[in-house]
Amino acid sequence: MLKIRRYSSTDSTFEASLHQLLAFEGAQDDKIDAVAADILKNVKTRGDNAVLEYTQRFDRVSADSLADLELPQARLAEALGSLPNDQREALKQAADRVRAYHEKQLMSSWNYTEADGTMLGQQVTALDRVGLYVPGGKAAYPSSVLMNAIPAKVAGVGELIMVVPTPGGEKNPLVLAAAAVCGVDRVFCIGGAQAVGALAYGTQTVPQVDKIVGPGNAYVAAAKRRVFGVVGIDMVAGPSEILVICDGKTNPDWVAMDLFSQSEHDELAQAILLSPDAAFLDQVEASINKLIQEMPRKDIIATSLQDRGALIQVRDLDEAASIANYISPEHLELSVEDPVALTKKIKHAGAIFMGRQTCESLGDYCAGPNHVLPTSRTARFSSPLGVYDFQKRSSLIMVSEAGAQNLGKIASTLAYGEGLQAHARSAEFRLKS
Amino acid sequence: MLKIRRYSSTDSTFEASLHQLLAFEGAQDDKIDAVAADILKNVKTRGDNAVLEYTQRFDRVSADSLADLELPQARLAEALGSLPNDQREALKQAADRVRAYHEKQLMSSWNYTEADGTMLGQQVTALDRVGLYVPGGKAAYPSSVLMNAIPAKVAGVGELIMVVPTPGGEKNPLVLAAAAVCGVDRVFCIGGAQAVGALAYGTQTVPQVDKIVGPGNAYVAAAKRRVFGVVGIDMVAGPSEILVICDGKTNPDWVAMDLFSQSEHDELAQAILLSPDAAFLDQVEASINKLIQEMPRKDIIATSLQDRGALIQVRDLDEAASIANYISPEHLELSVEDPVALTKKIKHAGAIFMGRQTCESLGDYCAGPNHVLPTSRTARFSSPLGVYDFQKRSSLIMVSEAGAQNLGKIASTLAYGEGLQAHARSAEFRLKS
Repeated sequence: MLKIRRYSSTDSTFEASLHQLLAFEGAQDDKIDAVAADILKNVKTRGDNAVLEYTQRFDRVSADSLADLELPQARLAEALGSLPNDQREALKQAADRVRAYHEKQLMSSWNYTEADGTMLGQQVTALDRVGLYVPGGKAAYPSSVLMNAIPAKVAGVGELIMVVPTPGGEKNPLVLAAAAVCGVDRVFCIGGAQAVGALAYGTQTVPQVDKIVGPGNAYVAAAKRRVFGVVGIDMVAGPSEILVICDGKTNPDWVAMDLFSQSEHDELAQAILLSPDAAFLDQVEASINKLIQEMPRKDIIATSLQDRGALIQVRDLDEAASIANYISPEHLELSVEDPVALTKKIKHAGAIFMGRQTCESLGDYCAGPNHVLPTSRTARFSSPLGVYDFQKRSSLIMVSEAGAQNLGKIASTLAYGEGLQAHARSAEFRLKS
Repeated sequence: MLKIRRYSSTDSTFEASLHQLLAFEGAQDDKIDAVAADILKNVKTRGDNAVLEYTQRFDRVSADSLADLELPQARLAEALGSLPNDQREALKQAADRVRAYHEKQLMSSWNYTEADGTMLGQQVTALDRVGLYVPGGKAAYPSSVLMNAIPAKVAGVGELIMVVPTPGGEKNPLVLAAAAVCGVDRVFCIGGAQAVGALAYGTQTVPQVDKIVGPGNAYVAAAKRRVFGVVGIDMVAGPSEILVICDGKTNPDWVAMDLFSQSEHDELAQAILLSPDAAFLDQVEASINKLIQEMPRKDIIATSLQDRGALIQVRDLDEAASIANYISPEHLELSVEDPVALTKKIKHAGAIFMGRQTCESLGDYCAGPNHVLPTSRTARFSSPLGVYDFQKRSSLIMVSEAGAQNLGKIASTLAYGEGLQAHARSAEFRLKS
């Protein structure tokens, strides 16, 4: 019998308990940060050689040169060709759906002209070169390749460079096949903070990119935070989370398995269920204890549910929505009769899975939206990875002679107010009177 | 006679010289980072008391409680009322223009329904609470208030909290007036890394925000990088830059003053001119030496131009565009006959000032576009501050029963491939056959 926290929103200590339940700042760990800083400094200074040494030390992969750790395109195509038919088809169908969805996100340039002929607008352009971090190890994720590469390609990024660690030399054919499906331009078998450093600063072999995206462990997250500014980064990813709101009328086995689908990621993953129906929470708990027996990853699931999970009784669905807004979960399942109405009350969530049919894993793989989502309450201020992360804007300002008269007076008044006389004089030079 | 670097793109060492000219990583300074980290830790642990101590130490402002450092709304309205008419009108006109431009940036929710009834989309919402950092000291900038506050208000942010250091207790009435014009909700007279910490973690008096925006010094930049993840940040701002491309037919006095308008910001600011016309470079240099005499900030301008400025002869305007793309300047002036054609060749720039009439200072204050722009080559991957920085997206996925059959098979195939059995089973539970 698993020991999963049980709260009620009417408990006097509920607010404090919830606060403590959500507390997580792994990526801010000072020791991890210091290690990442040291690796970055070394890679910046010594380039290829440093990357080779770290790869040997951490991944037990030796190579004479970094070029030997690059995979040729033929190797990717071969991986795709060798897959069982159902896997190859599933990958391609998922890619097609993800592409179709992301094409709706493309931003365009715009401008407008004012009465005096002054034109204002924004010019939208794609990034030149992007680095994709794909986690390796036991759980290598081909779906991560799709979710990172496709939005970049849709945006029109010139070159996509993927890095993926291959501990002990083990390569995941599904990951390589996914790279082939997405048209990834180059693949290096490196990972960790050293791969982040290689992409951020460039080495003799790895070209410098403009932005690094993709999830990774705490060292990768720390390294990404440190190189932010030299290159762009998507977000600092924490452990995965799911919050399920259920009215008590969904099959409890379904809800239990949906919670598992988050908990199985790692011991730090967080799965929380909110329901106004106390008896339903009991049923889900029973389903959890029944279904966990058949799970190959049951140890991870058990640790995650016991350490970070919770079953919470709420007053009603309105209160559930307001708790969800505080939690700002990465994944939010609304397993209720009228998910459209409830969605309108949600302000902060990475992705909203609406209705009993919409389990999170459909979104993780193939529904279309991105599975790289803001974690650890960052949905308060950030968005799913999207095409917009691979495009950027330049302001356009073309002032007419008439416009310069009007704007010049305003600008010079304000500039003198700020003590910036050259700003003022520069505007005044354009005045005709 | 100022000593300003003179290069030609035909020099064999040009590429290396340009690389060196642009090298700047101030915000990565380890000592500054350590000081900022210490301040943040202290503010996180000790809240108000820590902020009060740092404010006394760095700004020489004593107060019994942090509440005493908050300015009441009446104080802002009073500042606006006390301004000379021309300044008050200039502020209001600038605010109106900035608001009109930014309203064009508002994003909306969207969705589409597939043949089998599955609905996909994105729900767009505003951030709840935002912190605005406004630099203080000698050069307090009311225009920064407009540029940070207005996009947030247009986005629909619930509460805007401004922090502005007041060294020696000196308050800039234009800054307070600007806060009144923009409808800033609360103002605290605090600054530096301690203000960033107060906003990021919240204290007894300062509420926690969801995002911190606005430029600051190296300590502020380091603090912002460190709290990224706990809250959102806009960007890590470096020294200001201008790149002017001129065909040689603009009044050289105008171009010289436009370069000054960047150099006068601080000694580290960077002003660079590209022209195919060597004689024009000479004329601009002569104008610089003539006009600098009348500049109150001439010492700052001289240091900036001599340490970080350059006059560069290029082969033609096409080459100028490609050098501009490498530099990815914060501000780019295209002082040429056909700025529309040249703009199409620009891939990376914060803002493009098109045509001889469009001096940068018009954009800094009142043209409409934002003056918070990506510096230090970050225009390669980032955009001007905008309404989109105060909105975020949640993916919407509502799978129909029919959709769950199709998607469930794809998802379970891929999930088994990744060794995530709960993901697969969760999808399979929804299959009817």
